[in-house]
Amino acid sequence: MGGVSINAGIVGGAGYTGGELIRLLLNHPQVQLSFVHSNSQAGKPVHAVHTDLLGDTDLYFTDTLDQDVDVLFLCVGHGAAKTFMAEQQLPVSIKIIDLSQDFRWNESSKSDAVSAYDRVFVYGLPELQRQAIVKAENIANPGCFATAIQLALLPLAKQNLLAAEIHVSGITGSTGAGQSLSPTSHYSWRSGNLSNYKVLSHQHLHEIRRTLQGLQEQALPDINFVPYRGPFTRGILCTSYTRFYQTLEQAQELYTTYYASHPFVHISTDTPDLKQVVNTNKCILHLQKEGEYLVITSIIDNLLKGASGQAVQNMNLLFGMPEQLGLQLKATSF
Amino acid sequence: MGGVSINAGIVGGAGYTGGELIRLLLNHPQVQLSFVHSNSQAGKPVHAVHTDLLGDTDLYFTDTLDQDVDVLFLCVGHGAAKTFMAEQQLPVSIKIIDLSQDFRWNESSKSDAVSAYDRVFVYGLPELQRQAIVKAENIANPGCFATAIQLALLPLAKQNLLAAEIHVSGITGSTGAGQSLSPTSHYSWRSGNLSNYKVLSHQHLHEIRRTLQGLQEQALPDINFVPYRGPFTRGILCTSYTRFYQTLEQAQELYTTYYASHPFVHISTDTPDLKQVVNTNKCILHLQKEGEYLVITSIIDNLLKGASGQAVQNMNLLFGMPEQLGLQLKATSF
Amino acid sequence: MGGVSINAGIVGGAGYTGGELIRLLLNHPQVQLSFVHSNSQAGKPVHAVHTDLLGDTDLYFTDTLDQDVDVLFLCVGHGAAKTFMAEQQLPVSIKIIDLSQDFRWNESSKSDAVSAYDRVFVYGLPELQRQAIVKAENIANPGCFATAIQLALLPLAKQNLLAAEIHVSGITGSTGAGQSLSPTSHYSWRSGNLSNYKVLSHQHLHEIRRTLQGLQEQALPDINFVPYRGPFTRGILCTSYTRFYQTLEQAQELYTTYYASHPFVHISTDTPDLKQVVNTNKCILHLQKEGEYLVITSIIDNLLKGASGQAVQNMNLLFGMPEQLGLQLKATSF
Amino acid sequence: MGGVSINAGIVGGAGYTGGELIRLLLNHPQVQLSFVHSNSQAGKPVHAVHTDLLGDTDLYFTDTLDQDVDVLFLCVGHGAAKTFMAEQQLPVSIKIIDLSQDFRWNESSKSDAVSAYDRVFVYGLPELQRQAIVKAENIANPGCFATAIQLALLPLAKQNLLAAEIHVSGITGSTGAGQSLSPTSHYSWRSGNLSNYKVLSHQHLHEIRRTLQGLQEQALPDINFVPYRGPFTRGILCTSYTRFYQTLEQAQELYTTYYASHPFVHISTDTPDLKQVVNTNKCILHLQKEGEYLVITSIIDNLLKGASGQAVQNMNLLFGMPEQLGLQLKATSF
Repeated sequence: MGGVSINAGIVGGAGYTGGELIRLLLNHPQVQLSFVHSNSQAGKPVHAVHTDLLGDTDLYFTDTLDQDVDVLFLCVGHGAAKTFMAEQQLPVSIKIIDLSQDFRWNESSKSDAVSAYDRVFVYGLPELQRQAIVKAENIANPGCFATAIQLALLPLAKQNLLAAEIHVSGITGSTGAGQSLSPTSHYSWRSGNLSNYKVLSHQHLHEIRRTLQGLQEQALPDINFVPYRGPFTRGILCTSYTRFYQTLEQAQELYTTYYASHPFVHISTDTPDLKQVVNTNKCILHLQKEGEYLVITSIIDNLLKGASGQAVQNMNLLFGMPEQLGLQLKATSF
Repeated sequence: MGGVSINAGIVGGAGYTGGELIRLLLNHPQVQLSFVHSNSQAGKPVHAVHTDLLGDTDLYFTDTLDQDVDVLFLCVGHGAAKTFMAEQQLPVSIKIIDLSQDFRWNESSKSDAVSAYDRVFVYGLPELQRQAIVKAENIANPGCFATAIQLALLPLAKQNLLAAEIHVSGITGSTGAGQSLSPTSHYSWRSGNLSNYKVLSHQHLHEIRRTLQGLQEQALPDINFVPYRGPFTRGILCTSYTRFYQTLEQAQELYTTYYASHPFVHISTDTPDLKQVVNTNKCILHLQKEGEYLVITSIIDNLLKGASGQAVQNMNLLFGMPEQLGLQLKATSF
Repeated sequence: MGGVSINAGIVGGAGYTGGELIRLLLNHPQVQLSFVHSNSQAGKPVHAVHTDLLGDTDLYFTDTLDQDVDVLFLCVGHGAAKTFMAEQQLPVSIKIIDLSQDFRWNESSKSDAVSAYDRVFVYGLPELQRQAIVKAENIANPGCFATAIQLALLPLAKQNLLAAEIHVSGITGSTGAGQSLSPTSHYSWRSGNLSNYKVLSHQHLHEIRRTLQGLQEQALPDINFVPYRGPFTRGILCTSYTRFYQTLEQAQELYTTYYASHPFVHISTDTPDLKQVVNTNKCILHLQKEGEYLVITSIIDNLLKGASGQAVQNMNLLFGMPEQLGLQLKATSF
Repeated sequence: MGGVSINAGIVGGAGYTGGELIRLLLNHPQVQLSFVHSNSQAGKPVHAVHTDLLGDTDLYFTDTLDQDVDVLFLCVGHGAAKTFMAEQQLPVSIKIIDLSQDFRWNESSKSDAVSAYDRVFVYGLPELQRQAIVKAENIANPGCFATAIQLALLPLAKQNLLAAEIHVSGITGSTGAGQSLSPTSHYSWRSGNLSNYKVLSHQHLHEIRRTLQGLQEQALPDINFVPYRGPFTRGILCTSYTRFYQTLEQAQELYTTYYASHPFVHISTDTPDLKQVVNTNKCILHLQKEGEYLVITSIIDNLLKGASGQAVQNMNLLFGMPEQLGLQLKATSF
């Protein structure tokens, strides 16, 4: 592989997903990070906000947009991405990878891609539609819980096997809620604490249902999802179960086949624990058969496979680079 | 109230539930803690093992049983309680409160109480059968997850309303697994980590099903339970849901009525978080209606309402003392 | 002991120390908590803010002061206590226990007690001057680090043995910084994290120096204090060392004698760990001799012995009640 | 840079430092990891023990030594490295990098390097003696606390400025104690807990004193070190202070100059926090002047710059590769 070939910019670079993107792009062998935009931090060194980057970059946050980039990542939060696109006159030659939910498909989407501001946004879950992504011009990056749950269920939907009600519980770390200060982000509150929220009504169900219904012919059953806030910073673990009338071996065959060509998804024969994937772009799946139920455990790092890592994976695909480039990360493990 | 009226002994006092019992009984205004038995720690001061008790007690662990007590708590672990009862010739005048699962009822129990070693053990969930406990001679103290889940479902079973499949997810702290060292109890592993275990096959389902089936006439539906190990030390939070064709207000009325006379159960109109009950004997319940589902969140401290606190509550009832005596504990809160 | 004898009020009851006071006073056998004042939360139930109190109290926060109390606790933060006293015309018959630093003595204090607003505030460290507290009318409650460090050094100062430079490092939990939201209180930042702050310049050194200099005749040497923020919620652990030319046994004798009549201070022969005192009003000390140095480890719960617990201890003394009344708390242990 | 040029083996690969080495070497562009030796885990897949490596390697632990390697890392623990070297007849062409303390210099070392088993071990602190390492054949990798404290003091020793007593406090995460199970490694104990240990007597003082005395001409003053166990998994933060009669600017100039050519050491003008370096090979230093004292804060990841990362840094130097190769790691940040 030759020298740097892509110029990238980040909008909303002072937040958690923005910071992860900077960390990834600074080490990506084929990317030059041209600028990091932030309204709130403009003028400060990037390492003054993302303090682990001290010594890694001399970039400063800027409040002006440099249009001389090949790809622009939007890390501006839900709603703000639409506002940004409406206000800016970006040449279509700049590919957009948006990490908000603004351009993701949802259950009421009429077509496969979301059109807005003279652009077409492809839902960026590579394990669902890598070929569409390779040909795409703009990407709507999936949600974190949405990624963990879809990866747990894709092989079943593909085989038309989602017939009975689906039950999911999942636990997310604090970085999933971003860096804004709130009572439930206070250390004194959250340390050693737990709560559920948006029980049976989490907004990611929209994109999940759209994906799964798009894959299977029969009507999708209800998906009941109980999300929890847990006392840890990074990662999502989901347990999904639904009735499945084949054997465990058949399920394993089905999942192994489905994910054979997808480098970030691994099927574990042992029960996984969250820290196997923390600080990596992996998703680890585990299958179990209990009575009539197939139980699927899925784990991801919410900031990587659930956000910025998947965004880089999508960028790699958009620009014809190897899918894993810059994403073979050392796990934290502990 | 007058002076000390009860002499108590603890067998297996070096473990987590034993330690909690000692903490409770030392502060209980009507109990004299006569001895703490431990095979492994005999001869050591109690505060050498339960180091927070420095200055609170001069008791030493002993390996001989003093039979001059009114009540004996068994904190010896599953299986060991039976062995202990088989080996000892305890006069029936000593009431036994066993914290293991050895004498709890389960789905195949023919009658309401478990008979063993010339004794009858009553299942000690006061919010289910306080009157039976008041008249009992021996108690089988419920399991921790079993307590949290039963308290979430009792009012529905009472009204014959458990008609459709029940789904429960629950997360427990590390003290639930006791003090033995294992890879999943290592700090480096568990800190910031999560895993599920015994998915859809947790052993507490037996006592839960027995209780609920005993309350309602129609056949009990399946209960699907996904337990998690969480990165915290104390507490259990469970989310249960099942189809319920009445309104939220009706559900609240039903629960409020059911628990009106039970001092440790509180219905919260706000979503609860685990630390509301940590270091207390409370159970807080929260009700929510989502579509056809009634969602019940229940939280307890696994070592108190889920073990030693409930054991003291049972002792209070057995001996005609106020149910809350010695159990109005300051929450840790943080 | 008879019925309720004291009426108490709390100003600034919505914060951390205010919450702890409420928890303590609700369970105190000789106190009636008359009102809890809070400008920010007036009108809300107390349990809406201190959610662990659900079921324990029907009090509402109020924004009017009821002057019909025997004692008023000020939990309003540094600076605000002075403002409050200046603005209110409180009868001197109401005893004030202030938890801020506003009325604590410091190195430049001319006399033993601080006079302000027609009142005299006695520095409320019972292990230093219980007799002065018993006779006091108003109390300035010591700081948390100040309590841990003073209890480590009092016996040496008393014997005129603080001759050489003193070195202290100490680590505090997040509740020490109160409930206001800040970047260093964010869970994502603080979990698993550490930092030092105010190195060699912590404000508590003023009251510490004043206390120690007041005890010993010779000039007090420098005290170098390195404070840390640790990833936990409750507790302070300090390690102090200074040259000491006697034996360990002599040191132990000296400390044991000094604290013989003080029920909350315990000398441990084993190295202590922080959780021995969490959720209690204890201070545990440990002594060690290394070369010429005497090393003193001291641990307290910053919200109890370091704040609200000590305030109740002072109240007990002010009103002639047993020093430990309402303060024999179950440790959290885990 | 061309293809793979070095074959590496690891002995003791099932522990924490062994696992980190595997993670690093699998991603190192110039290394082929030939084998991972483990007596306890031989025959199992490497990812069965280091479960985050699922999908990254098909290696199995082996109990036979393959001598066809260029470098062998010993991760076998203190004492065991000597035993291993005594029992094996390894050709001297295999360079040894030992992570234990067995071949580190200490205060009583007569010469600069430690000779044993026909080999000469050079103390592998690149920021002290990179040129000696480049020419070395075997490396004794420094201890974790030793690295953090030496990096804090090297520039002062170099300038002969360590004249007055040095005071250090430092806090380490749980991985510093390895994976063996012990009461202080139990999650229920360590979560939210703190303790000091080996106060003023930590074994790393030997190598620290040897290094510093080797640099400066005048006699080294006493170093007083208070180590703590903290409730987190990775990282070390140390605060060191000693009298320094120049200005802060002069100190900064001195440190900046000393570390100008050392890519992993960064001087921060802001107070650092531990997570800036977690999962990286960096050391961040911060300087502060308080009265006569210069205060130096130093942070490292104990498993990387404090162990396996430094071992790879040493390997890079031994084999003439760029010092940072394979060590530009994404920080965990949260």
